Amino acid sequence: MKIGITGTGSYIPSIITKNEDFLDHEFLGSDGATFGDNNPVIIEKFKSITGIAERRYAQAELKTSDLGYLAAERAIEDAGIEKESLDYIIFAHNFGDLTPGKIQGDTLPSLATRVKHLLKIKNPKCVAYDMIFGCPGWIEGVIQANAFIKSGLAKKCLVIGGETLSRVIDEYDRDSMIFSDGAGAAIIQADQESSEILSHISATYANEEAYYLFFDKTNDSEGCSNTRYIKMHGRKIYEFACTHVPKAMATCLNESGVSIDEIKKVFIHQANEKMDEAIIKRFYRIYDKEAPKDIMPMSIHKLGNSSVATIPTLFDLVRKGELDQHEIKKGDVVIFASVGAGMNINAIVYRY
Amino acid sequence: MKIGITGTGSYIPSIITKNEDFLDHEFLGSDGATFGDNNPVIIEKFKSITGIAERRYAQAELKTSDLGYLAAERAIEDAGIEKESLDYIIFAHNFGDLTPGKIQGDTLPSLATRVKHLLKIKNPKCVAYDMIFGCPGWIEGVIQANAFIKSGLAKKCLVIGGETLSRVIDEYDRDSMIFSDGAGAAIIQADQESSEILSHISATYANEEAYYLFFDKTNDSEGCSNTRYIKMHGRKIYEFACTHVPKAMATCLNESGVSIDEIKKVFIHQANEKMDEAIIKRFYRIYDKEAPKDIMPMSIHKLGNSSVATIPTLFDLVRKGELDQHEIKKGDVVIFASVGAGMNINAIVYRY
Repeated sequence: MKIGITGTGSYIPSIITKNEDFLDHEFLGSDGATFGDNNPVIIEKFKSITGIAERRYAQAELKTSDLGYLAAERAIEDAGIEKESLDYIIFAHNFGDLTPGKIQGDTLPSLATRVKHLLKIKNPKCVAYDMIFGCPGWIEGVIQANAFIKSGLAKKCLVIGGETLSRVIDEYDRDSMIFSDGAGAAIIQADQESSEILSHISATYANEEAYYLFFDKTNDSEGCSNTRYIKMHGRKIYEFACTHVPKAMATCLNESGVSIDEIKKVFIHQANEKMDEAIIKRFYRIYDKEAPKDIMPMSIHKLGNSSVATIPTLFDLVRKGELDQHEIKKGDVVIFASVGAGMNINAIVYRY
Repeated sequence: MKIGITGTGSYIPSIITKNEDFLDHEFLGSDGATFGDNNPVIIEKFKSITGIAERRYAQAELKTSDLGYLAAERAIEDAGIEKESLDYIIFAHNFGDLTPGKIQGDTLPSLATRVKHLLKIKNPKCVAYDMIFGCPGWIEGVIQANAFIKSGLAKKCLVIGGETLSRVIDEYDRDSMIFSDGAGAAIIQADQESSEILSHISATYANEEAYYLFFDKTNDSEGCSNTRYIKMHGRKIYEFACTHVPKAMATCLNESGVSIDEIKKVFIHQANEKMDEAIIKRFYRIYDKEAPKDIMPMSIHKLGNSSVATIPTLFDLVRKGELDQHEIKKGDVVIFASVGAGMNINAIVYRY
């Protein structure tokens, strides 16, 4: 039985925030101290490492579940399926629905239920749940859908990744410039003609790595210590990702039986351009190869890091011919790979 | 292949809060108005409907993930397995880790990662994720573990349900007396000699039912409107549960091929004693039967409603002979059934 993706959709929020918009920010270290560099230098360094020139934020009236709903509606239409035929709605996120100016995430009910509600799906057998697995949550949702289909539990699953990170960033933290909002979705179905999940891998590193991404107070020593924001040990994550992601991708590729030369695109979590380039370089080095030109579509320059949303959004853009010169053709083998809080890693080798 | 539960564990928090402890509370309606009844009357009515005489709250220094870890440790020991052999840690909760006095839930990293960290499991192939599915989350986790094992993705899974609802209740709301803290866990394994998941069912009702349980501000009109608490439309939930849960249980039982007369125990979510009794009565009525005496073990009187934690805790207590005169023997067929936010319903028919 071939299990594959039959439709994709994404929602790219409308508010564009450029790097220049951070020029008047007061950036502080985690110790509350100011930096030696001035903001133009900080921002230039930031851009040269992450590749991010601008990012998208959702309008105040849209929450993560709304973004997910908009992406889901497009994926359902793209797949040409009847929404009532869905067996699962799996929503990967990490913070629930966030309202600007309020600090509590809302997961009552689950975001998957909210999407089902907005889609007006009546069939109670369409099971809606949320999943938390850091940035790799959307890929993990696809892996779970694949298992449900294989085990006979489902035939059609909607997997959504959505996040509004603009609402959990500490404006005093330079890392706040990384994060953005967005949502992407896909329909996973059994009995496909050609497209197919060929292999997949997942891992959780929870020893010293568990708290590389964490929730903590603002860098502003005069700020409210009860309000917590997304925080990260960037350098440790960089080293962790460069060490473990290429190996996981290679294990997954070897298991698929596909040759490295057949890989047409690698859709990698848009976390940081330099890090992503280093991962791809090391991955090809395992096979004594140079990474081919244009192997790695990148959306981070314009969209930033929207966590679980980056890969389904990127894949949707490339599928629909909306990202630079990138294209994929029927039969092409591609890799999806992600890394994030947990620390979790996963990858899928996929025949399109 | 038989897939069953080989070990269970639970953690019952140490702080006992009795109904009398609410005598001095100021209870208000959702409109902010006081009630005609005085507190002794309110509390007596509450007890006669829910059955709750006391409930457990976790000590301030323990968070949901800590409770889950303590339950998990016992389940692993009970199953007699090597912790490094676990393929999955699935943690069902709804609010993340909550700190008394702070209103933000923390899911960065996931609670499953935190448990893996505390258990000091090194094997990166042990995949840790969180799942949000309302009160039925633990049963749903077992259903997911079952699918992973069936599909060849896993052999051993740890499924945890944990919650600290005492930290999201509005003290001005009478419903605050319902909720409690706790955690339960089980090991699900392939290739069991006798114990086996015979059938299961899951459903999500997300039309008008989606917001029967919701997150909203305090009933105190002078309270901070930015802080939200667990809220519910109790009567609607009662009617919903009595209508849909018995039917779902019957569908699941019919699918299992087991006769109603063979059922030895029904482990039902400890939401409300009167509601649970009505569900059981209606379930047996479908088969033109009276519900047998002692069919339904109840822990709600002493433990309250700890959401995802009630069923695994109840099952653990009965398995270990720690709840009244209830016992289950090898080969007994039992039913697990739950209902909660989503609105979600699920059930499992299980040979012990």
